[in-house]
Amino acid sequence: MKTTLNAINALYPTPTVLAGAMVDGKPNFITIAHIGIVNHARPYLISLSSAKAHYTNKGIKANKAFSVNMPSENLVVETDYAGIVSGKTTDKSALFEVFYGQVENAPMIKKCPVNMECRLYDIYDTPTHDLFIGEIVQTHAEESVLTDGKIDLAKLKPLLFDMSSIKYWSVGQVVADCWKVGKQLK
Amino acid sequence: MKTTLNAINALYPTPTVLAGAMVDGKPNFITIAHIGIVNHARPYLISLSSAKAHYTNKGIKANKAFSVNMPSENLVVETDYAGIVSGKTTDKSALFEVFYGQVENAPMIKKCPVNMECRLYDIYDTPTHDLFIGEIVQTHAEESVLTDGKIDLAKLKPLLFDMSSIKYWSVGQVVADCWKVGKQLK
Repeated sequence: MKTTLNAINALYPTPTVLAGAMVDGKPNFITIAHIGIVNHARPYLISLSSAKAHYTNKGIKANKAFSVNMPSENLVVETDYAGIVSGKTTDKSALFEVFYGQVENAPMIKKCPVNMECRLYDIYDTPTHDLFIGEIVQTHAEESVLTDGKIDLAKLKPLLFDMSSIKYWSVGQVVADCWKVGKQLK
Repeated sequence: MKTTLNAINALYPTPTVLAGAMVDGKPNFITIAHIGIVNHARPYLISLSSAKAHYTNKGIKANKAFSVNMPSENLVVETDYAGIVSGKTTDKSALFEVFYGQVENAPMIKKCPVNMECRLYDIYDTPTHDLFIGEIVQTHAEESVLTDGKIDLAKLKPLLFDMSSIKYWSVGQVVADCWKVGKQLK
């Protein structure tokens, strides 16, 4: 039996990331789970949705650069904190030790096992949010979260966000092989 | 110790959805995990990235409507199948029993416990993909996946897609409360 829930977004869970940007010369971080994959081909484009009033937006616009850092479950306190205090009133520059890659002004978080440095490709404007579309320039990963050179979700343990429960969830187990399990219906 | 992986997209896992559209008068379905949340305010906008050559794109463009259906783990075979055969060569209209809501030409899948009917709001163009941005008009859910009237991920059991392993993963456990666990750093 189906019921209607009004026009709520049910497209969860999504990976929670820490977006990094330079704002007024200092690294700043904001927690975002309203992410997107814009295309799957060069240039690889991903998106972050950020309410227009957010402090970080100014830095991304000014420098045309940002980073996308993926925290593991053990960073849940710091990750959540970065999402509940604004850079307008709290200096978050010392919250994480940072490193830089090829993209200037895209501070990446050392403690996050996976980092993507992005050039701002475009901004898709909505009435309330800036959708920052970034071109991934380089991806960095801790060797401890790789298996055969590839990111292993069971080792990365990303934080999955869900708006219905307002909770972070873990990744579970492998269910099936993609592009394979469906062949039995052919 | 960090290593570089070139400019790969690491923004996974993402929820796997079955997008529904009418193409040449028949329901068609395509599996998409390159989803996005474009904003979180009215109008609620979500995105689906689909390579330009895909059969479904034509139907979304013609009718300016599509549906986003969330399969549970028990639909993994059908979900994967819809992603490996093209509507150009295989009639997928009988794969799922459908129902309709307020949006014309947005066929929704009965067997998927959660469905969003969307009006096409915009198409963001990339060199290789159409990014379909949809406005959620109504969300439908099986009562069996709700707890206190809200979607419960532990009951929904969405299929999470990961491009690194090319596997579907399950959702695990609750890690922490969002907008709360970080308060201890204040």
